[in-house]
Amino acid sequence: MSTITHAIAAQSPGAPLAPTTIERRDLRSNDVLIDIKFAGICHSDIHQVEEDWGSAIFPMVPGHEIAGVVAAVGDGVTKYQVGDRVGVGCMVDSCGECEHCRAGTEQFCVEGNVQTYNGVGFDGENTYGGYSQHVVVQANFVCGIPEGIELDVAAPLLCAGITTYSPLKQWGAGPGKKVAVVGLGGLGHMAVKIANAMGAEVTVLSQSLKKQADGLELGAVDYFATSDETTFTDNRGRFDLILNTVSAQLPVDAYLSLLRPGGAMVNVGAPGEPLSYSAFSLIAGNKTLAGSMIGGLPETQEMLNFCAEHGIGAEIETISADQVNTAYERVTNSDVRYRFVIDTATIGA
Amino acid sequence: MSTITHAIAAQSPGAPLAPTTIERRDLRSNDVLIDIKFAGICHSDIHQVEEDWGSAIFPMVPGHEIAGVVAAVGDGVTKYQVGDRVGVGCMVDSCGECEHCRAGTEQFCVEGNVQTYNGVGFDGENTYGGYSQHVVVQANFVCGIPEGIELDVAAPLLCAGITTYSPLKQWGAGPGKKVAVVGLGGLGHMAVKIANAMGAEVTVLSQSLKKQADGLELGAVDYFATSDETTFTDNRGRFDLILNTVSAQLPVDAYLSLLRPGGAMVNVGAPGEPLSYSAFSLIAGNKTLAGSMIGGLPETQEMLNFCAEHGIGAEIETISADQVNTAYERVTNSDVRYRFVIDTATIGA
Repeated sequence: MSTITHAIAAQSPGAPLAPTTIERRDLRSNDVLIDIKFAGICHSDIHQVEEDWGSAIFPMVPGHEIAGVVAAVGDGVTKYQVGDRVGVGCMVDSCGECEHCRAGTEQFCVEGNVQTYNGVGFDGENTYGGYSQHVVVQANFVCGIPEGIELDVAAPLLCAGITTYSPLKQWGAGPGKKVAVVGLGGLGHMAVKIANAMGAEVTVLSQSLKKQADGLELGAVDYFATSDETTFTDNRGRFDLILNTVSAQLPVDAYLSLLRPGGAMVNVGAPGEPLSYSAFSLIAGNKTLAGSMIGGLPETQEMLNFCAEHGIGAEIETISADQVNTAYERVTNSDVRYRFVIDTATIGA
Repeated sequence: MSTITHAIAAQSPGAPLAPTTIERRDLRSNDVLIDIKFAGICHSDIHQVEEDWGSAIFPMVPGHEIAGVVAAVGDGVTKYQVGDRVGVGCMVDSCGECEHCRAGTEQFCVEGNVQTYNGVGFDGENTYGGYSQHVVVQANFVCGIPEGIELDVAAPLLCAGITTYSPLKQWGAGPGKKVAVVGLGGLGHMAVKIANAMGAEVTVLSQSLKKQADGLELGAVDYFATSDETTFTDNRGRFDLILNTVSAQLPVDAYLSLLRPGGAMVNVGAPGEPLSYSAFSLIAGNKTLAGSMIGGLPETQEMLNFCAEHGIGAEIETISADQVNTAYERVTNSDVRYRFVIDTATIGA
């Protein structure tokens, strides 16, 4: 049977979020019904509500940082049972057959993956996200949340965690490596924690020194202001890896000068405007500019296991449903340390 | 004793090259005196004579694609003996002690490597390149040219060969991989031969189809004109690796769209003006933009051995010393298939 559930939605582009109800589909054989406990607020939720990234689907129930407990399973599900602690991230389906799906990098599915919200499933139905009390998701797109991480601090791992874990791992963050994290926001603070747990020496490069004490406490050994020009002279050629989590238009060549020969700067934050660089900045030093987009399901599970082993969760501020619009304003103003998480029990209350 | 040798030099920025004589230093314990047989003309020779890359040292004897025969060795040299076939590339010295020198990536020496010409040695003496009949080089910066490659077609390998071999190897060109080479000039034609010998499927992307027959004969399976917009739609998402050998300002995002997820575009050609890209072009597909600068000495020797094993030399047009100025004009006009090589016996004749 389908489930009617409480949610909060924007009814049109830029509209404030307000309580509503939505219908979740009947459980198919491989589906899991999740009783959502917490949903993180990602900056991309705001971009999509505002249609910053192009035309979107309304009403929109945002949320792709979902943590909860299994409430029911379809008859074909063996991986999960009622009561399991689980999470859902940015995707809820993909073709399952292309080379990328077979390789566990479903974010690159040749048919296009189905986004958790503001997407259309292969059944033609719109998807609605985690700002809700229940969701039905195909079991392959559900991850287990290991004991050792509370559900509230686990929720943001499903996007902010995997978005930073994947490039840190791919580009070799680990013992003996010097990693700079640009920006100490939702993504950046996870990057500091994860890179530190991987054994790398972590430095934060932030616009100002406002969050310096936090950065050092989260595991950074150094914290520099990028508004201070000496940051670029003093740290020239220092880093093996720079993970750029901000969406501003950075002076790319200046950042590349901070890399050692063979080093890489990986972007997970994307400004809307084009960036400019000199080919010499890459050639002289065999340097790399790369991008990274979330991670596939196997790697997301690996990240959750890694975080549980290392006692890593997000730093959160838990809010009730009626505070979401205020939270959106604060995220836009970079006024959150470091992730808002909605207690979904307060939706429809 | 020092050696007075015939050479051709530009006496001032942009001046035509003309015969002269230069002095090569007394053999030090670890030095090799090379009787130069052939010297390739690299486009960068012209840029340096013209001071396109900033203030240079004159008189200038260009040439960093040197092939010849050992004529004498210092008393500490065990690696080479008189009569050995040898080559010298873009560097003739480095500190030998920093981590990069120890790792065999002398191009990244923290003290700065000493360029073969337009450089200053650690002894304070200016360096003069391969458009000459003799050169004295520290044995560590001399490579052996294996039997199986003639010296004339070997000379260009010392720059064009290693400049393309190194990124092709680093970025995984090999069986099952689809490699696009942008530009079919001195670098590009070596890239096609080497990538093909590595087992990759090679496609040439050139401004026009003028050299299509050559490209296919050199080992490419496909050849497309980048002036034709359908090249970008028909090959979307096709390549694992794009090696860009041209120095023009390319539309970076359009080229990135030709990469598969996880693919890399590596620049070895560098336009003077900045390039522009969208961070989304890298993020959506975990793509990479990288640069690569020549290669260290161990890898240069490896490349020469690889080329000998696979019967690979450059496609050359051999010229006499009095044709160098005409050759420079033709290189500037992209009118060479595919490398000019100076027969140094004609210098001072």
